[in-house]
Amino acid sequence: MSHSVEILSVGTELLLGNIANTDAQMLSQGLSELGLNVFWHTVVGDNPQRAREAVALAKKRADIIITTGGLGPTCDDLTKNVLAEAFGRRLVFDEGSAQRIRAYFQRTGRPMTDNNLQQAMLPEKCEILENDWGTAPGCAFEAEGVHVIMLPGPPSECQPMFQYRAKPYLLSLSEGVIASHTVKLFGIGESTMEAQLREQMNAMSNPTLAPYAKEGECELRVTAKAATDEEAQALLQPTVKQVRELFRDKVYGVDVPSLEYVVLKGMGEKGLTLGTAESCTGGLIAKRLTDVPGASQVFKGGIVSYTDGIKESVLRVPEHLLTQFGAVSKEVAAAMAQGARQVLRCDIALSSTGVAGPDRDDWDNEVGTMFVAIATQEGTHVRALHLGNRPMRERLRTQTASHALDLARRYLAGLDYGD
Amino acid sequence: MSHSVEILSVGTELLLGNIANTDAQMLSQGLSELGLNVFWHTVVGDNPQRAREAVALAKKRADIIITTGGLGPTCDDLTKNVLAEAFGRRLVFDEGSAQRIRAYFQRTGRPMTDNNLQQAMLPEKCEILENDWGTAPGCAFEAEGVHVIMLPGPPSECQPMFQYRAKPYLLSLSEGVIASHTVKLFGIGESTMEAQLREQMNAMSNPTLAPYAKEGECELRVTAKAATDEEAQALLQPTVKQVRELFRDKVYGVDVPSLEYVVLKGMGEKGLTLGTAESCTGGLIAKRLTDVPGASQVFKGGIVSYTDGIKESVLRVPEHLLTQFGAVSKEVAAAMAQGARQVLRCDIALSSTGVAGPDRDDWDNEVGTMFVAIATQEGTHVRALHLGNRPMRERLRTQTASHALDLARRYLAGLDYGD
Repeated sequence: MSHSVEILSVGTELLLGNIANTDAQMLSQGLSELGLNVFWHTVVGDNPQRAREAVALAKKRADIIITTGGLGPTCDDLTKNVLAEAFGRRLVFDEGSAQRIRAYFQRTGRPMTDNNLQQAMLPEKCEILENDWGTAPGCAFEAEGVHVIMLPGPPSECQPMFQYRAKPYLLSLSEGVIASHTVKLFGIGESTMEAQLREQMNAMSNPTLAPYAKEGECELRVTAKAATDEEAQALLQPTVKQVRELFRDKVYGVDVPSLEYVVLKGMGEKGLTLGTAESCTGGLIAKRLTDVPGASQVFKGGIVSYTDGIKESVLRVPEHLLTQFGAVSKEVAAAMAQGARQVLRCDIALSSTGVAGPDRDDWDNEVGTMFVAIATQEGTHVRALHLGNRPMRERLRTQTASHALDLARRYLAGLDYGD
Repeated sequence: MSHSVEILSVGTELLLGNIANTDAQMLSQGLSELGLNVFWHTVVGDNPQRAREAVALAKKRADIIITTGGLGPTCDDLTKNVLAEAFGRRLVFDEGSAQRIRAYFQRTGRPMTDNNLQQAMLPEKCEILENDWGTAPGCAFEAEGVHVIMLPGPPSECQPMFQYRAKPYLLSLSEGVIASHTVKLFGIGESTMEAQLREQMNAMSNPTLAPYAKEGECELRVTAKAATDEEAQALLQPTVKQVRELFRDKVYGVDVPSLEYVVLKGMGEKGLTLGTAESCTGGLIAKRLTDVPGASQVFKGGIVSYTDGIKESVLRVPEHLLTQFGAVSKEVAAAMAQGARQVLRCDIALSSTGVAGPDRDDWDNEVGTMFVAIATQEGTHVRALHLGNRPMRERLRTQTASHALDLARRYLAGLDYGD
């Protein structure tokens, strides 16, 4: 069984460029993981004629059509009307959906107008995909050998509607289950990772290996298909183990959300506290740590010392280090981490100092020259980075923050610092 | 002359969901500003047959086809081959492009392989769009009443190639010039803004007004078309003035990149320095300020005080305020800003404290309860925010950071704090 999928997005805001089509990306990723082939993305505006044309095309060239958007009252429920028409179905009023819509407005205390109830009109004999994240229900049906799934447009609704409603429907089309694990890596480039895996990736069919790169990190998605979850897991485990062995200390976790999450969790488990002293990253390390709900159990605080004066007065970096080596130096990075550890009274402190650009600093250090350090009760370690001056300021800062977090991750895991 | 545009993106990575189609968004925004109607986005993979189908469709339904991706050696220059074939053109070797490709590899010190030179094969009689940001040149030609423009896929190339190569080509299709100004607003919702403008927007044709919302801020793009830039500016000025008068102190700038930029620039001009004390925003205010190149002229540093202990020991918040009112209070927000102003020895300090969730704090404050404060030589002002508990943690933090920056912006502009 080899399905071909078309994702059809309806929304003038996409054609005006007000938003990017992140729904199509999210769906494509999820569908690929299900082993379904996405061959087309199409976007049309809130225009019945072009929507009809698009549906007629999709019906010819795909056997699964997934639509996003065009379900709300502001667009006259364009998508439902056009799809129902194309497959010769009437729209019928669904009292269950109407009740859910009324309840939603009651719960959020917003006034409901009559056209909100239009959203309870759904194609006859469809499976209703209940929307717990907004008002417009989705739906799914099969007709003329084509499966049609309609999802709401707002990403905060589309994502859970796919995850919890459309995915089970799609899984019921195929026999068996799909399971996956994501191995997260830091400290290795995507091309190096791919080069080491290429032969293996090409030779594998179940499980499959898919590499992704994002913001200076890499991840490998291992996906298997089997009759039961146990069998899928049995297929996955050897590959996950193999990947772990291949990339050893570059692997910072499996199925974990981020490097900062791993650091906070590891420290929480050990009852340790964390603090930061940031120069070039300007608060980014602290920001990333506090992006994680519950960070306050571990993270006590941070100092952003953007001038030498603050490094001296707040972080207690000795003046002679600043005059002798300059703020962007191994010595100052170490002193910042040590100072933060004292001032913030934490077990572990991380620091960063460097030149994020656009220009060299007063000491003529190149853009991309960075130092990150960790201070613990065992001592202090500094990692020197030469990130090159080609990436943008934002990317340099993100990478530097990740390197600082990587030091903490390695310390917690009992690894050497890898420098 | 009313053109209809189709954006055709070629790349399997889009269908796998490895990346979002941000090229299509960027192009759609740019094309809308030129007054061109984008009616279709289509994505196909690196697959000649489906690419041919897509081009055949685009040729029928659009009179401007803009392609992204599929120009490099790894995909056998799919896009160029398919488009040239569809319009009956041969590909011919362009020595000028070959020289530029050789020079690019020499400059970046990377090894060049023969298939890189394939990129110098271009449709006969096309206008070559030189690529100063990568290796693959773009091109443009007109055939059978359709304009075809091919651009490289990587966003870091596609964006400048559109801006500096495709846009001039498109402008030459229309007579006259297009000019625009962007009015930036904070402290007003998109729907309120739109409601106040709807009639005006619908009545206007030149200039046009387009609202955008992003991350708790709004902007209004005013775009005019005229024979000369002077005439376009003459059309724009009254509308910009009108919008400024309508939204008064909500307008924080015209053609400025961000709120943080406006704050840093305003303080730099007055020779003032800035510091931050952050609790719920966890370093985000400092991070946003230091995103701006040259921030160190104004921004001295910040304290992220994620625990009461740090608020007391580093920021010198009196203990009795913490025990009497709790960390999430008007009183502590004020004391944090005052403390930061002293500790960081800066002219102006901003602070934040609040509950970013997911749970209420120990004092049973609701998620979304936030206080931001500003301390200056004239005194201290606190703004209380009730952002509701519906938005996500990240969004709550972004909005809170923006409110803190808004206090500084208002102080600098001599406005009241608007609370």
